[in-house]
Amino acid sequence: MDICALRRDLHQHPEVGFTEFRTATIVVEQLLSLGYDVRFGRDVMEPSSRRGLPSESELDHALSRAIADGASEAIASQMAGGFTGVVATRRGTAPGPTVAFRFDMDALPILESQDTSHLPQAEGFRSAYDGNMHACGHDGHTAIGLALAKQLSEQPFQGTLKLIFQPAEEGGRGARSMVDQGELDDVDRLFCFHLGLDLPLGWMSGGATEFLASTKLSAHFQGVSAHAAAAPEKGKNALLGAATALLNIHALPRYSTDATRVNVGVLEGGTAANIIPDSARMVLECRASTYEVNLDLERRVRDILTHSAAMHGLSCDIEVIGEAATATCDKDLIHLAMDQAKATEWFTHVVDSHPMRASEDATLMMRRVQERGGQATYMVLGTSIAAPHHNPAFDIDETILPVAVCFLGRLAMHTLLS
Amino acid sequence: MDICALRRDLHQHPEVGFTEFRTATIVVEQLLSLGYDVRFGRDVMEPSSRRGLPSESELDHALSRAIADGASEAIASQMAGGFTGVVATRRGTAPGPTVAFRFDMDALPILESQDTSHLPQAEGFRSAYDGNMHACGHDGHTAIGLALAKQLSEQPFQGTLKLIFQPAEEGGRGARSMVDQGELDDVDRLFCFHLGLDLPLGWMSGGATEFLASTKLSAHFQGVSAHAAAAPEKGKNALLGAATALLNIHALPRYSTDATRVNVGVLEGGTAANIIPDSARMVLECRASTYEVNLDLERRVRDILTHSAAMHGLSCDIEVIGEAATATCDKDLIHLAMDQAKATEWFTHVVDSHPMRASEDATLMMRRVQERGGQATYMVLGTSIAAPHHNPAFDIDETILPVAVCFLGRLAMHTLLS
Amino acid sequence: MDICALRRDLHQHPEVGFTEFRTATIVVEQLLSLGYDVRFGRDVMEPSSRRGLPSESELDHALSRAIADGASEAIASQMAGGFTGVVATRRGTAPGPTVAFRFDMDALPILESQDTSHLPQAEGFRSAYDGNMHACGHDGHTAIGLALAKQLSEQPFQGTLKLIFQPAEEGGRGARSMVDQGELDDVDRLFCFHLGLDLPLGWMSGGATEFLASTKLSAHFQGVSAHAAAAPEKGKNALLGAATALLNIHALPRYSTDATRVNVGVLEGGTAANIIPDSARMVLECRASTYEVNLDLERRVRDILTHSAAMHGLSCDIEVIGEAATATCDKDLIHLAMDQAKATEWFTHVVDSHPMRASEDATLMMRRVQERGGQATYMVLGTSIAAPHHNPAFDIDETILPVAVCFLGRLAMHTLLS
Amino acid sequence: MDICALRRDLHQHPEVGFTEFRTATIVVEQLLSLGYDVRFGRDVMEPSSRRGLPSESELDHALSRAIADGASEAIASQMAGGFTGVVATRRGTAPGPTVAFRFDMDALPILESQDTSHLPQAEGFRSAYDGNMHACGHDGHTAIGLALAKQLSEQPFQGTLKLIFQPAEEGGRGARSMVDQGELDDVDRLFCFHLGLDLPLGWMSGGATEFLASTKLSAHFQGVSAHAAAAPEKGKNALLGAATALLNIHALPRYSTDATRVNVGVLEGGTAANIIPDSARMVLECRASTYEVNLDLERRVRDILTHSAAMHGLSCDIEVIGEAATATCDKDLIHLAMDQAKATEWFTHVVDSHPMRASEDATLMMRRVQERGGQATYMVLGTSIAAPHHNPAFDIDETILPVAVCFLGRLAMHTLLS
Repeated sequence: MDICALRRDLHQHPEVGFTEFRTATIVVEQLLSLGYDVRFGRDVMEPSSRRGLPSESELDHALSRAIADGASEAIASQMAGGFTGVVATRRGTAPGPTVAFRFDMDALPILESQDTSHLPQAEGFRSAYDGNMHACGHDGHTAIGLALAKQLSEQPFQGTLKLIFQPAEEGGRGARSMVDQGELDDVDRLFCFHLGLDLPLGWMSGGATEFLASTKLSAHFQGVSAHAAAAPEKGKNALLGAATALLNIHALPRYSTDATRVNVGVLEGGTAANIIPDSARMVLECRASTYEVNLDLERRVRDILTHSAAMHGLSCDIEVIGEAATATCDKDLIHLAMDQAKATEWFTHVVDSHPMRASEDATLMMRRVQERGGQATYMVLGTSIAAPHHNPAFDIDETILPVAVCFLGRLAMHTLLS
Repeated sequence: MDICALRRDLHQHPEVGFTEFRTATIVVEQLLSLGYDVRFGRDVMEPSSRRGLPSESELDHALSRAIADGASEAIASQMAGGFTGVVATRRGTAPGPTVAFRFDMDALPILESQDTSHLPQAEGFRSAYDGNMHACGHDGHTAIGLALAKQLSEQPFQGTLKLIFQPAEEGGRGARSMVDQGELDDVDRLFCFHLGLDLPLGWMSGGATEFLASTKLSAHFQGVSAHAAAAPEKGKNALLGAATALLNIHALPRYSTDATRVNVGVLEGGTAANIIPDSARMVLECRASTYEVNLDLERRVRDILTHSAAMHGLSCDIEVIGEAATATCDKDLIHLAMDQAKATEWFTHVVDSHPMRASEDATLMMRRVQERGGQATYMVLGTSIAAPHHNPAFDIDETILPVAVCFLGRLAMHTLLS
Repeated sequence: MDICALRRDLHQHPEVGFTEFRTATIVVEQLLSLGYDVRFGRDVMEPSSRRGLPSESELDHALSRAIADGASEAIASQMAGGFTGVVATRRGTAPGPTVAFRFDMDALPILESQDTSHLPQAEGFRSAYDGNMHACGHDGHTAIGLALAKQLSEQPFQGTLKLIFQPAEEGGRGARSMVDQGELDDVDRLFCFHLGLDLPLGWMSGGATEFLASTKLSAHFQGVSAHAAAAPEKGKNALLGAATALLNIHALPRYSTDATRVNVGVLEGGTAANIIPDSARMVLECRASTYEVNLDLERRVRDILTHSAAMHGLSCDIEVIGEAATATCDKDLIHLAMDQAKATEWFTHVVDSHPMRASEDATLMMRRVQERGGQATYMVLGTSIAAPHHNPAFDIDETILPVAVCFLGRLAMHTLLS
Repeated sequence: MDICALRRDLHQHPEVGFTEFRTATIVVEQLLSLGYDVRFGRDVMEPSSRRGLPSESELDHALSRAIADGASEAIASQMAGGFTGVVATRRGTAPGPTVAFRFDMDALPILESQDTSHLPQAEGFRSAYDGNMHACGHDGHTAIGLALAKQLSEQPFQGTLKLIFQPAEEGGRGARSMVDQGELDDVDRLFCFHLGLDLPLGWMSGGATEFLASTKLSAHFQGVSAHAAAAPEKGKNALLGAATALLNIHALPRYSTDATRVNVGVLEGGTAANIIPDSARMVLECRASTYEVNLDLERRVRDILTHSAAMHGLSCDIEVIGEAATATCDKDLIHLAMDQAKATEWFTHVVDSHPMRASEDATLMMRRVQERGGQATYMVLGTSIAAPHHNPAFDIDETILPVAVCFLGRLAMHTLLS
């Protein structure tokens, strides 16, 4: 299957974070057929570090659907419960650096446009899974990854090539699990990339700046219900605690050093007008322009949550359901990438930096590599987009797909040999 | 069908407030067959005064179910949309007072016990409508009403007999609509009653005290969503308004004159961690031991809601979804009832007063009658109960059913003739 | 000095709670001169149990004033720092019960009326201490106590007589200190009383009901200041913690079992618009119709305070500045008192109970006596009052003073002998 | 008196905002003696636009003190009530542009250091007004203004020279009043300046950036008091409204476009634990990096205040007690200033911009001039400082004083002639 056909097949079968059973099974099968050493599922993911895991029934439903739609049951069943990460390794002919490329595979919970002007609709590869959609180009990322794997499988090199297919990038939920399992610990050079963003076709950036560090939390307040008229004093009111937390989280101080953000995006609690509510659930996030300030802000948010609960005799369970860090791209890799991009003689504009102003959990992988002495960068490969990212009418210009493979192939060979 | 068989049929087909299509159709048919002048549906209910109406789809579903289960389509379809009140009138042989009896017909959203020790399960008349249950004895009330109608249809009297079958007593949702339509305006003497409560079999009370006035409200806060990181200042945050209202409603002053209650029982708003929430919904109630203080408390609650919204640029729509007043039973009727109860020579304990400490929307009917110069009382007819009211194992001792008919028949004849 | 002259002298020199240096010195001197065994100051008061002590400078100022106005420096200086309680004991001729009478001595921070219709103004015994006033009749209580001491000093009896002169009744601040020092531990029968309240001259009540238990607290929130523009994140905002506490304290549940009250009566914090406030002070109270519910409510208030502070990284020091319990008067003593009142042939109306609906820290003494197996009552001796208690124009009809001495004398002799 | 002697005399008699009676009287006298056309008091200040005016008693006290310390009673009394602005005008020999210089005169409520290492203490010109101090160099500004007036009084020029002596710069309180009175309306070129800040001696900047727009507000909540136990429902609780406002003001959204700040710096309300508080006072500020966002933020703050009050039935009076805008310095004037600074051959470092990161109400004057087509700049003249601005040990190196006069004189002559 050529790269565009593969991308369209993936586009038609969009799977949201931790349910990429069909996608990851295809990835595993192709990588095995190309002779890679392939590990996946629990082997490459720390179970407790997965953020914002779907419910068991959602996971089960998606797995059944994947198998019904042709995924190998033998492989897919090893991913049951949301273990959809894949890592392929190929050792070269001689010792040398370990060079890794990272691809994200997940789709979004968006209902894809049925407008005839929307190319996937017109060409017949619109999402077959209503309510899910590849509206951020990760279908292209995965297709590029497999095509790159194929190209590199036929060439000799020194060192080790590592291809990392990550689940659940959206919401910052999947990277931590692969980092905590140690998948980045042996990487000397890590290349991450994204298609599109604000760069048009013909442009590429060797690095990226202005990542926003962020943490998404879910908090569950548990109290005691009671009849609101007959015995209100016997209740422990979960909504009083949650409302107090909500106001105080928003009232946390602005920082003089950083742009910061807080938002309680969801609050749900209680059952009926005449019952003291015994339970409330909150989904919230904080962000900052540096990793350290985001940590400080998260600490303060947790203090607010904990004590807002305690003042009303409630328990409060807090779970991280998404996270991203900031990261600084290494100049060496930025310039390596720019040089190889120029060498393709295809890109018209090659720049060293693109401002992200958003969150991306590839940063967690980049930080880990850098903490252990390696280097990392995050590249952007421009492409025309039909509508903004995360829009029901989003689509990419597929012209970039083979170009990306060519470019990344050069980059890999150059890096491995150097 | 005898009264117990009828009660068991109703028990098996429990319909919650405003969906009593099958029940009310049976009521209409039997009353017509007994020669009463019967009015129902929009004729006896003011549409805009119905509180806490179910959704259209719930109403449609219940209507279809009733017809499928044998309800006359001709009659039931006139109740479509939640118009399930019925009023039967019979004029006597000479002018005289208008005497009314009120019966409530609705069930509760409770899953009935399947324990074999639960009589309806053992005897095969457990709810056929899973999730709905007659757990407050209104099946008995309706059966008594129809049996009373039959008994009184064969006797001559002076004055006018009025039998009022009310929907949606639970939550205080149905009475207002019949009051506002004027159904109580011509009533000289109104008798309301309830089976069970805390009175054992053999006991009866001619009156009741300590009703709690209450108002249940639904409030919808509408703001403007925005991306929580990219443009938080463009949002108008519905949850900030709702949380502020929640805290301040609970912080309203205690009253030196009355026991009062406030409770925000439900709060739900927002969609995702990274979106400023544009919408929130709150369900709440206030109560007081007098009608006037409850009105004052409701006014304060509305002030809090309105201004909590306005301070964040939100709109706030407030809807009354339930209400009950306080009422004082008239001594004349209390003693009339006690006398006739004693005259049955069946009741072992006949008292003049029972403390309710709960809300009951029959009080709205009682107040209207009294405001126009009539008299009213609320009686309790004791019976053994298998579990507390509103419990999945609730059941009544049917012994009381024919006794109640006998007693109410005496009361009616005595009152009409006097 | 006769009782009216003494009362007028005390009226003219009103001293607020814990500053009764002149008053208590007079009490000590007269009791000593009558041959009582007199203990006072630190001997009869536990220092750490004094509630809401004035500042050192206020205490010093009042002590100097007392000495300047003729108080014995030798005695007054032993009361320095707010130790103004006095206990006189006289043992009878034979063993017998210990019978105690309790008198409170403090005035109020009220500016007394200068209206010529105000008797103390007209007769020249208006407060010489501007801003302080005997507006609750404790000047009368103290005068009665000393006159009673004189009368009983000349009569033989069996058992032990104990006269307790308590400081700082207003605000519930002084009784605890004498209770904790053990002054009530040996008392078999305790008689407390108040002049006036709602009873007219000629009436007396042998007992009292409907005391409100109450606790008054002062809370100090301490954080860290910072420049509000240059480094707001370095601050720990004391007013955010205090405002959160204030809202949540008022939002504590109403109780189904008791009338309850909460009030944050004072909040003060911060220094300037551009400084994150590092300090806030709150004065608040809770009340309940039973001692146990008030304890539960106080516990909840403390939880709110502590966690509202902790959520913003603040410390919170909480101090009890006033307290009162509920108490039940013993029937035996009620009837004893009624009998002796009748025996005076002066009172026109002798009743067994007066509803207080207020707080009184004599209850702490009563509870201690009862806990140890003794009996206690709280009597009211009616008198005409010129304006309500705590009003700048308050005054008592002095007719009651000698009558009260006569009555209490009978009661003492009867009780000691019996 | 030479410039240093004058500065030391002013330093010794520091007068805070709107109480500069002695200072302004000296200014008026000297300007008159130099032949200027001098207007002052109500002639140059709109009464209602003065922000954060001291109390009448503070104003009266300061006026008396000024007269006692030698201020001309005839002149000072025309400034009574806080009208301490002065404007001197001199018309040149031919028509031409109107060129204005602005000097601020007020001191701060700071207790000056008595350390012998503090030069004013050592040299005997420490503040004679304990609690007030020239800790921001405005004494130097005023001395420079008068020395400049003298120098320019002897030179011929074309156009009009305007010297503006402004009261109450601290807190952003005085400029608005002179702007609203129209004092800036005829100005073609406005030069403002400050000594010190972060620039060392020898440095000067021709312009300034990064002003923070700010608004300081005072809010008074008025409700109704009631006894907290006897009738809490009769109260309208001012602290409930204030605490709600406090939390919600801090919870206002961060802006994606600007750095913003909010702070409730002071909250005071209530009288006693057992009284529902009927009154509360709040002092607060908001800031933003643009004037427009600060206006939007102020609007939101006012919405919060108004509706927090209204929800509890309170009134809320809001008063602006300080304000500052942002402003952009005109390039022409920046370069003119830099050229003349260089021409003095004294400054070692002449730069075009200094980041303020603070608020300054000269911006209000600059905006008015620019709105009407004129130009304005804000210069900084470096000097060594003994401690940071607003510190009790602050002092300037007086070396800058004659240099500043020389530089400003050149600038004036150059601008007027050009």
